[in-house]
Amino acid sequence: MEGVQQEAQNREAFRQAVTNTLERRLFYIPSFKIYRGVAGLYDYGPPGCAVKSNVLAFWRQHFVLEENMLEVDCPCVTPEVVLKASGHVDKFTDLMVKDEKIGTCYRADHLLKDFCKDKLERDPNLPAEKAAEFKHVLAVLDDLSSEELGAKIKEYGITAPDTKNPLSAPYPFNLMFQTSIGPSGVSPGYMRPETAQGIFVNFKDLYYYNGNKLPFAAAQIGQAFRNEISPRQGLLRVREFTLAEIEHFVDPEDKSHPKFPDVAKLEFLMFPREDQVSGRSARRIHIGEAVAQGIVNNETLGYFIGRVYLFLTQLGIDKDRLRFRQHLANEMAHYAADCWDAEIECSHGWIECVGIADRSAYDLRAHTDKSGVPLVAHEKFTEPREVEKLIIVPVKKELGLAFKGNQRMVVEALEAMGEKEAMEMKATLESKGEAAFHVCTLDKVVTINKDMVSISKEMKKEHQRVFTPSVIEPSFGIGRIIYCLYEHSFNTRPSKDGDEQMHFFCFPPLVAPIKCTVFPLVQNQQYEEVARQIARSLTAYGISYKIDITGTSIGKRYARTDELGVPFAITVDSTSSVTIRERDSKQQIRVNVDEVASVIKEVIDGQSTWGDVLWRYPTHSS
Amino acid sequence: MEGVQQEAQNREAFRQAVTNTLERRLFYIPSFKIYRGVAGLYDYGPPGCAVKSNVLAFWRQHFVLEENMLEVDCPCVTPEVVLKASGHVDKFTDLMVKDEKIGTCYRADHLLKDFCKDKLERDPNLPAEKAAEFKHVLAVLDDLSSEELGAKIKEYGITAPDTKNPLSAPYPFNLMFQTSIGPSGVSPGYMRPETAQGIFVNFKDLYYYNGNKLPFAAAQIGQAFRNEISPRQGLLRVREFTLAEIEHFVDPEDKSHPKFPDVAKLEFLMFPREDQVSGRSARRIHIGEAVAQGIVNNETLGYFIGRVYLFLTQLGIDKDRLRFRQHLANEMAHYAADCWDAEIECSHGWIECVGIADRSAYDLRAHTDKSGVPLVAHEKFTEPREVEKLIIVPVKKELGLAFKGNQRMVVEALEAMGEKEAMEMKATLESKGEAAFHVCTLDKVVTINKDMVSISKEMKKEHQRVFTPSVIEPSFGIGRIIYCLYEHSFNTRPSKDGDEQMHFFCFPPLVAPIKCTVFPLVQNQQYEEVARQIARSLTAYGISYKIDITGTSIGKRYARTDELGVPFAITVDSTSSVTIRERDSKQQIRVNVDEVASVIKEVIDGQSTWGDVLWRYPTHSS
Repeated sequence: MEGVQQEAQNREAFRQAVTNTLERRLFYIPSFKIYRGVAGLYDYGPPGCAVKSNVLAFWRQHFVLEENMLEVDCPCVTPEVVLKASGHVDKFTDLMVKDEKIGTCYRADHLLKDFCKDKLERDPNLPAEKAAEFKHVLAVLDDLSSEELGAKIKEYGITAPDTKNPLSAPYPFNLMFQTSIGPSGVSPGYMRPETAQGIFVNFKDLYYYNGNKLPFAAAQIGQAFRNEISPRQGLLRVREFTLAEIEHFVDPEDKSHPKFPDVAKLEFLMFPREDQVSGRSARRIHIGEAVAQGIVNNETLGYFIGRVYLFLTQLGIDKDRLRFRQHLANEMAHYAADCWDAEIECSHGWIECVGIADRSAYDLRAHTDKSGVPLVAHEKFTEPREVEKLIIVPVKKELGLAFKGNQRMVVEALEAMGEKEAMEMKATLESKGEAAFHVCTLDKVVTINKDMVSISKEMKKEHQRVFTPSVIEPSFGIGRIIYCLYEHSFNTRPSKDGDEQMHFFCFPPLVAPIKCTVFPLVQNQQYEEVARQIARSLTAYGISYKIDITGTSIGKRYARTDELGVPFAITVDSTSSVTIRERDSKQQIRVNVDEVASVIKEVIDGQSTWGDVLWRYPTHSS
Repeated sequence: MEGVQQEAQNREAFRQAVTNTLERRLFYIPSFKIYRGVAGLYDYGPPGCAVKSNVLAFWRQHFVLEENMLEVDCPCVTPEVVLKASGHVDKFTDLMVKDEKIGTCYRADHLLKDFCKDKLERDPNLPAEKAAEFKHVLAVLDDLSSEELGAKIKEYGITAPDTKNPLSAPYPFNLMFQTSIGPSGVSPGYMRPETAQGIFVNFKDLYYYNGNKLPFAAAQIGQAFRNEISPRQGLLRVREFTLAEIEHFVDPEDKSHPKFPDVAKLEFLMFPREDQVSGRSARRIHIGEAVAQGIVNNETLGYFIGRVYLFLTQLGIDKDRLRFRQHLANEMAHYAADCWDAEIECSHGWIECVGIADRSAYDLRAHTDKSGVPLVAHEKFTEPREVEKLIIVPVKKELGLAFKGNQRMVVEALEAMGEKEAMEMKATLESKGEAAFHVCTLDKVVTINKDMVSISKEMKKEHQRVFTPSVIEPSFGIGRIIYCLYEHSFNTRPSKDGDEQMHFFCFPPLVAPIKCTVFPLVQNQQYEEVARQIARSLTAYGISYKIDITGTSIGKRYARTDELGVPFAITVDSTSSVTIRERDSKQQIRVNVDEVASVIKEVIDGQSTWGDVLWRYPTHSS
């Protein structure tokens, strides 16, 4: 117990150190701070914004460019009909309770969770039986219905945390920001809760753009919005965030992936459903074997899991604190074929940062139904195939005479019969001349006679297969990935004189907010001119830099730039050659002024390592 | 008159040709099309999205990187208090009229404009006097008050265009999308109408980040939202759009710019206020002279005008259809020192695409007043300076006895007195022992006696000057720039056999959605393997490409890729060397397979021109 508390304290202290550094160096800023801010809204300050734009540029290179994806960019403002079709208007809710006297709102599950945790952690006299009960509640928390949650809150006598007032029964609160489109006030709209729907509604055009061929993937980077009831966990649960989503459309009968062999040999921490249920831990598995053994549903899903692993680790996520966890049966939507989350461990625990789901045909079908526009793909047969087809031909004249105004409903019900029902009716009509028939839309049983409909089976030649593609969706929470990256990159080492702990972010050059800093060693015009000359050549190479001409000691200036995670520092200490210092090793080399930009370029582009250039140039000791 | 109509028809036909191509090739897609769309919302389809991301990457390079700007990224959801301070809650409105029977909304000025234009264009018997009146109305349209607009609509008997029903009087409609932050429903918020406010509220932190030094610039790229009453002009007036904004903070007493000489020699079309008023046309002016002659208010404003010119023309905007128009006195906010719009001519006329305004200290002062947090800069003097200071010391004890609960208001009013008022009060107190004093916040006159306040002037040593910086704001409507770029890049030429008009976009490589297409000349495994090999090397260089392995004729495939604006086509017609074809000249060169990616890279990076490589490699004629 003490060990656990100590660990919690260490985690808390570590998190404080990271977030203090992040906030002090403006990696992020609580939004609208001078107005005391808004919970769950954060700005990216200059270095944070640069990190984000580097992460997104790499995402585009790694996914969109390398996989030839079709990137689109849709508006955030979305009309109600789209989110009605997707299910968000009806189901995108959290359960909320209200302070019955002053109206403050709380998430119902949070209150119950806090109550149970608090009891478990702070009540030394808790009977074993009670402890077991609280643990059970915590385990099933996500599955509790509104009624069950309400009953528990009542049973435990939980009140409003701020006032101790009684609480209302839980009721669903929709998490979308609502607005109204146009001036009339009669067209409700929402700020999109995800970017995916913009892709689904464009399926037809994108399929055509891809030459009417499957598979293909569309991608979108953009803002998404969730009006959280009471945001907690700082940068991890926010009300507005950047998503990067891929919708990969495949033939449901062929989910193989031509490039799967490229990732099949990768091995990383996976946490299959069965291991979770049976209480085992995550273990290293080859993704190739996971697919071969059916742990991962199909090659395409496996391919994306592998690509996500490469993406995250190349950004600097520690591979030992990254796992792919399969959704349990009760976590997964009923339509999903399989679903894995890339979870990254940070001081808040294991955090879902990327979801990789095989959503089958659900989304395209939902929009087909709602819009009436068939979002389908076609497979042309090289040779026409013989297919047995059920043919139902209602005789409208006879039906009109018999059913008058209800004729249309009867016709539609007849046409909608499945094969079994139709063949039974055919048999009845042939034997008895008439048959009883239930028309749902009329909610009554009518009598159909043999003149009213002809039912037959025919062999037909078909030239193509028409089907709704399955969609495999990797969805990236960019802000969460970046926050975990900050924690994984955060390091501490003693200062030169040993009396201070220095913090620094060991970002790989790919994500570092600025690639190098240029320091004239002393304030003098000659050195500053050299610094400006180097700056110009860095700009020409498209390398971001900062010049620091303050008179502070070079040690302090190094510490300042290390803290921002800048990988290289160029110190101008002569007019012919300068030193380049690498952040993590603190090693320095001496390079001619006119070569310095190209050396930096080489290393940040990954053409050479620091080790390579260290070997080529004289080292320098300060 | 006929010439004018002919020109209008040509413009309309040209616009139709451009927008047809854009929509057919998915540069843009009306959003939520399968649900019949929403006016004023558009998606960027794959090539449009690529063009947009190229334009934004170049913007970052040209402004943020080259000028060392501090880029930030703030949320779209904004609490009311921020937009109350900025004036948007009260003043960001358009005048609207409603169909009194069915409630349809129209922009009042649009109806009046359409009416006048229609009369002028279609009524051949219009008396000269009436024509002059309608022309006058069109000229002053933007300046009409709500009452004046209403009176004109009544006078002309204008009715609802769709129903001919009578119209309501005009009333202001706020163009911000409103929402509610958090679950309680008591915290109103809006989707930001511009990105600038996010920067202003962060001034203090950004100034600190810049080492408490001026000048510096912050920048932001992001979505902005305007709930237009009835969007028209297609892609030019939309309800959600991407803005790229710069806020350059300077000392109001020194608006010089160290890099101004870099742009001073540029010459381009400018349209100063005086030329507009006196009916002259835009003319070519050196920006250096424009600043020297005081046409442009200051060097920093002039520097940005020059940089914007370079940005737009490097993207491919035709310099003869680009002008910088100065705002007329009545267009400019009262606080603005000077304001210029970069206007680009397209088939819709001259369109404002970038606004470059010296907004003086307005925004920082507004947020200082509302938040109580001083958004100011400090100039440290090298030697302390003697400054005469007005000292007002209210004697709270006396004031409390006299005014009880109103004491605070009286104290604040006394402290807020200006120099003149205070010195007058001092004289009156000295001569008469008491003085009448108007307290605005109480809205009454009170009597102050000489024991209640001490007023004096003292010489004080000051070590620094505290002031509110001026802000110079270049604000870019990215969607509008891109649309104009489409029109300026659109070209038509006859097909090879001369029986068809082929459209193509002559985008510079910088903005082209895809840099090259790879075509195996015939469908064969060997050529396809070479194509894949080239594709891999293109990916390694970060060059976007598309492989087209359809069996269509090479001529048709060239036409298809030209229409997308792809600058280079690589045709695989052997396994050792291939041809590279340049889109605009249709010239071809023959290059070895392993050199092809580096040649393309060289040209798209601008290290070589097509002319250079044409000279180095054997030409090829198909």
